[in-house]
Parts: sequence; C-alpha cells; structure tokens
Amino acid sequence: MYDITSDIVSLIKMSKVHTGIASVYARGSTAAIMIQENWDQSIQNDVVSLLNKMIPSGIWEHDRQDNNGDAHLKAGLVGPSETIPITGNNPGLSTWQNIFFCEFDGPRERREIVVTIIADN
Amino acid sequence: MYDITSDIVSLIKMSKVHTGIASVYARGSTAAIMIQENWDQSIQNDVVSLLNKMIPSGIWEHDRQDNNGDAHLKAGLVGPSETIPITGNNPGLSTWQNIFFCEFDGPRERREIVVTIIADN
Amino acid sequence: MYDITSDIVSLIKMSKVHTGIASVYARGSTAAIMIQENWDQSIQNDVVSLLNKMIPSGIWEHDRQDNNGDAHLKAGLVGPSETIPITGNNPGLSTWQNIFFCEFDGPRERREIVVTIIADN
Repeated sequence: MYDITSDIVSLIKMSKVHTGIASVYARGSTAAIMIQENWDQSIQNDVVSLLNKMIPSGIWEHDRQDNNGDAHLKAGLVGPSETIPITGNNPGLSTWQNIFFCEFDGPRERREIVVTIIADN
Repeated sequence: MYDITSDIVSLIKMSKVHTGIASVYARGSTAAIMIQENWDQSIQNDVVSLLNKMIPSGIWEHDRQDNNGDAHLKAGLVGPSETIPITGNNPGLSTWQNIFFCEFDGPRERREIVVTIIADN
Repeated sequence: MYDITSDIVSLIKMSKVHTGIASVYARGSTAAIMIQENWDQSIQNDVVSLLNKMIPSGIWEHDRQDNNGDAHLKAGLVGPSETIPITGNNPGLSTWQNIFFCEFDGPRERREIVVTIIADN
C-alpha cells in the first residue's frame, strides 16, 4: 500500500479549486484505491492479511492464464475509484484518513493514477 | 447503520440542482457509506453479522494501538464514498436503495459527512 | 456479470466531453458495478465463486422476507457506484479494465443504470 495523499494535496493546490470533488482512479485491473489510517504501518499490514485470508492465491480459474486471479479479485472488491470532497482547497479527509494506492500484483515499474478535479457550482 | 437518505434529499432540494451528482463522503477512518435496502431492520442486522464474520475483532496488529483494527478494516473495505446521481432534483435511487452511514467504532458524539453536489453541464 | 463498457463509451462519445468524469450507478439494491478484466470468462466466474463463498445464500435474517439476503449483501459490499475518469473523450480505463453490471438476484427483465457525465472546468 502506497500513501499518495501528499500527491493529491499538491494536485488540488495546483487546481486552485476551493470546493468540489477529486476523483482518484487507479488504472490497472490488479490495483485499487483505499482510504485508510496511516498512523503507523500496522493497519496496512492488517489490510494485506485480511485480503490474503479472504482471497487466497492459487485457487482461481483465472490463475491458468497468468496466475494472478487473487489480485484481480482484490482489485474488484476494493475498487479503483474513490471520490474525495475538496473543502478550502484541500482534500476533505478526516485526521486519520489517508489515500492509498493498493498494488495487488507488483511491484511494477510504472502505474498510472488519474485524478480529476471538479469544482462545484 | 444510520439511514441518512432524508438528509441527502433535503440537501439536493436546497441545491436546486436538477441533474448531476451528489458525492457522499464519511469523514472518519472507522466509518463508511453503504447503499442498502431499508424495508425493515433485517438487512442492516445481516450487514453487521456479515462484516463481523468476515472481519472479527481482536486479532489485528493495529489492536495494540487502540483496539479497533476491525473497525478500520470494515471502513476501508466498504469505503467512505458513494456517488449518487441526481435526477429531477432528487437522488436517483431505486425504490429499495437507501443511503446509510456505517459506524464501526461508536457510538460517537459527533460524526461528519460531506455532501458535494455538482450539476452536469 | 454483464460487460457494459461499450455502452459507456457510446454515451461519453455522444456527450462530447473531452475530460471529466462518468459516474456509473446501478439502480437496484441487489445489483452493483464492478471494474474487472474481461480477457475471457474466467475472472467473472471467479468473482461469482468468491462472492458465493464469502456471502452464502440462505442464512440471513432478511431471507424470511424475500429469500435474497445474500444478493443485498453482495450489492452493498461491491457498491452501486463507480466514478471513471474521462480523458480524450474516452473512459480512462486501462487495457484490462472493463465496466461490469453485476446482477445478484436475476435474471430480471429490466434494470436501470444511470450514467452522469460531467466535464472538468
């Protein structure tokens, strides 16, 4: 899990949008976006443990293709998109909410995240 | 689970937006937003049972900090954001869809939900 | 699981929106939207297997009403909304991301999906 909060903060600052939404989207069918605490590493480890328990590797029909069925299932369940409010030209996160990119089939050299910032009217 | 549908309806009415989206966002890393039926209490009870079975309490690394690892995991999996269409100055929900705030580590005295309403063009 | 990607592409083309977001919303408390690969049928079968294992049918309080508690729970967990970026008048999906309508209590004669397209500013 990669904390991308500071990148999203920067993009919102650059946009100068005061109130609106930031749509954060992970391009990749074995990746996802999750909002989670980042006080320390513990809850990130717990997310990995939980998903590995719920969705074990090596038992899926898709594994016959490229052996990453579990990564697709985790990505589908967590989901590639989160929509975060913008308030005061900042992401409207609570104190303990951070934005994480979840890599379920990596590491990869390159991943793309699309952030779309839209002002309210 | 707290049904907040009528609050969202009121905010959309006030906005006078005819068509667009309402982004509903739970500020809090142990809370989430879920769309679910509200014919009676049964499915809400089932949601709680399911999440408690999938994500039991007391077995997480994060519990050493503040003993609420399960609440964070439930929140991360369900997710804090839902984006609901607006049609005819109303939320575009089906008959049996209601909007619920999910409290996984409460009760709390105060929780914040940010609703951002954006008209389409 | 029904692949609706080409319908979303058509709607985005018709809108002539170059960059922005497309909010895809399943109207129905026993249906959902999932982004997933569609190279072949395998991962779709795996999604069905996973959800049936995680959320078996016939053991829920809601089943006493209309015997579809599992369908509601699957819908709530996967979620009815996905927000997809629009780039270059196309959905900003990666090569292996397709948009699926998930029917958990069907088949039905008719289901409604609301797609709201919003340009960025």
